[in-house]
Amino acid sequence: MTTATIDEALLALLMEEQASAAGTPDGGVDRPALTEGDRIARDWLRAKFDEMGMRTLVDPIGNMFGCLDWAGADAPWIMTGSHLDSQPKGGRFDGAYGVVAGLAGAAALREAVRTGSLVPRANLAVCNWTNEEGARFQPSLIGSSVYVGSMALAEAMTVRDGEGISVGAALDAIGYRGRDVPPRPAAYVEMHVECAPELEQEDLQAGPFTRYWGATKIRARFTGLQAHTGPTPMERRRDALLGASYLIADLREMCGAAADTLYTSVGRIETHPNSPNSIVSEATLWIELRSPVQNVLAWAEEEFLRALALSATRADVAGHVLHTERRKAGVFDAGLCQRVEEAMAAEGIIGKHLSTIAAHDAIRLAEICPSIVVAVRSIGGICHNAVEYSRPEDLAAGARVLVRVLSDMIERTEA
Amino acid sequence: MTTATIDEALLALLMEEQASAAGTPDGGVDRPALTEGDRIARDWLRAKFDEMGMRTLVDPIGNMFGCLDWAGADAPWIMTGSHLDSQPKGGRFDGAYGVVAGLAGAAALREAVRTGSLVPRANLAVCNWTNEEGARFQPSLIGSSVYVGSMALAEAMTVRDGEGISVGAALDAIGYRGRDVPPRPAAYVEMHVECAPELEQEDLQAGPFTRYWGATKIRARFTGLQAHTGPTPMERRRDALLGASYLIADLREMCGAAADTLYTSVGRIETHPNSPNSIVSEATLWIELRSPVQNVLAWAEEEFLRALALSATRADVAGHVLHTERRKAGVFDAGLCQRVEEAMAAEGIIGKHLSTIAAHDAIRLAEICPSIVVAVRSIGGICHNAVEYSRPEDLAAGARVLVRVLSDMIERTEA
Repeated sequence: MTTATIDEALLALLMEEQASAAGTPDGGVDRPALTEGDRIARDWLRAKFDEMGMRTLVDPIGNMFGCLDWAGADAPWIMTGSHLDSQPKGGRFDGAYGVVAGLAGAAALREAVRTGSLVPRANLAVCNWTNEEGARFQPSLIGSSVYVGSMALAEAMTVRDGEGISVGAALDAIGYRGRDVPPRPAAYVEMHVECAPELEQEDLQAGPFTRYWGATKIRARFTGLQAHTGPTPMERRRDALLGASYLIADLREMCGAAADTLYTSVGRIETHPNSPNSIVSEATLWIELRSPVQNVLAWAEEEFLRALALSATRADVAGHVLHTERRKAGVFDAGLCQRVEEAMAAEGIIGKHLSTIAAHDAIRLAEICPSIVVAVRSIGGICHNAVEYSRPEDLAAGARVLVRVLSDMIERTEA
Repeated sequence: MTTATIDEALLALLMEEQASAAGTPDGGVDRPALTEGDRIARDWLRAKFDEMGMRTLVDPIGNMFGCLDWAGADAPWIMTGSHLDSQPKGGRFDGAYGVVAGLAGAAALREAVRTGSLVPRANLAVCNWTNEEGARFQPSLIGSSVYVGSMALAEAMTVRDGEGISVGAALDAIGYRGRDVPPRPAAYVEMHVECAPELEQEDLQAGPFTRYWGATKIRARFTGLQAHTGPTPMERRRDALLGASYLIADLREMCGAAADTLYTSVGRIETHPNSPNSIVSEATLWIELRSPVQNVLAWAEEEFLRALALSATRADVAGHVLHTERRKAGVFDAGLCQRVEEAMAAEGIIGKHLSTIAAHDAIRLAEICPSIVVAVRSIGGICHNAVEYSRPEDLAAGARVLVRVLSDMIERTEA
């Protein structure tokens, strides 16, 4: 039994420090992936790795790893972390908490190793994955996808943002296109704020995500005809924005039909020429369908295709799918879940099993090793907003669980 | 009776030349007001004014005037012209034709004066009005509005585009913030392509716009709550884009109710944060209501306000009007209309009286002098698109009418 102990003051300080990187006046952060704000956060993290005697590695997609190879070159690696990128004008907890908990956890474990109370058989790395959010660049989870091999590096490099800037160019611009070959993990544990109201509603502090919802993310386009909004007779108009509007309304209706097993959304729209007195000739929508049930997702995609065709017909425009990305629903590692439950019990934290509707890098890591996400309570269930909030005591409780799980694995995991 | 004669080859050449200023591969032009493309077109026009011995004046809002003050400093001024700015990826005829017809007309009249067949009692100016389109900067007709005094110069200077660049800064950037005091007109005649299918459907070449529709242009905003498109329960979502979509669909329905006396459109939408996995917290719409009947416009605005409130309630967001601009329906000058009809008869051109649904600078000029727009046939009734087209023979017919009307006024208009 080790005695690694989280320094709660350090945890709080690190949370404050990271939040000052591209912080907004309302207490949030504005650092979409590979922007100048993200660079500031990354530079801060690299400085922390240095301070804490962790070797920094940066891979070709910009993932950062702070490494403590105390168990030697041949020992297995345990990894923890999350992401420092945010939504545009997002909150200071989503992603950053997982990185900060990893740092505070690493500090506690390092002290335990120094005093001899922890004898490490595995090395530890704290990670910051590139473009988890998928706000500036789609898809989300680009860094972890490339890391596990489910997305080709060359493909990721050519993904472009709304301004036409590629991931590769953006990495170069902020100096984070690395050349290092990072270690491969034996297990991955990620801390995250819940981003949902369930723990708060039941007055619980934390809980492992045991399942994750599937998501079908679709980019669809309506194509009409650019023409004058004045003299063009109404019956001749082929208005792509009108088609898009019909579809957005229909997508909301679909959820009503499937109750709590289907969430739908359109978070992004781009229109051309987007001039007040020209009919929109092109409207592109970024659509998400999310469900815990694979059959519901499949049904929803079919319904969506019907709605797309119908909306296009109603507006006398063309509608077609540009791209579809399907992420299946699944379960996290049962063994890790049990370790988390034991750690929570040891800390006297009462929690519950949760499902995550949002994606996390842990879903990608699950493709190559046992992986899990542990959630701590969000207040108001809100996320992707500067007002997102989790209490310091809940963040600390989560970090204590993390240290227990990590120290357990570092002590026992063998090559 | 003068013998000023349009040089049709010159007219065609000038059309080609202007179309090469910020021309697009599909034969259109891309020169929203005060962009680099607009600068190229303006520089071309200034060079033409120089070539043709016309004195160039540029006023503080960037309106350009090519002046032939052959009748002396105290003589009245007749003006003609239109605008060289275009919609984003717009056509080569909308606006540019009026400027080019003015140039070709001025060349014909100058030759008539030189040979003594025209004895001028009035001076002539060919104008290029700033930001007629209202694509980059709203409202439209900024240059002519400032010129006639219906919009304050200081207010116009601070209008900003979607990037936050002001009209003043944009004028400075392309070097067209002038200091000249332009002449004031005794009459204004503008040539324009019809931008509607009526002449073509009746196999006619040209016709005066005798009436103009009114327009109510509204900027409205839905405000919801930025949150994660994943874990945020559907019933908690406050999706501003959903509210906007309901309204766009309702606005289309309103036209059905009012048949041919009401046109509605939403040509521009801006959303925030516009990230695929964040619920849209803010959606701003640029809405137009157009009608030839003042009461219908008033009714439509009330209906719009009801639809705005209803859409907001349905989506659980707030909806409010940011800005409303009301341009009343009206009639152009009857005397000028008669001169146009006489000129058409003399040229053997069979036409008809038309109503313009689109705005033209002539509507602003009508506030200070007799004013009219003469339309020439558009093919397919399409406008604000690279495919907009009018036949060379129709452009030439229109220019012949213009020269007759101008020469008539230049000969007879007294101070």
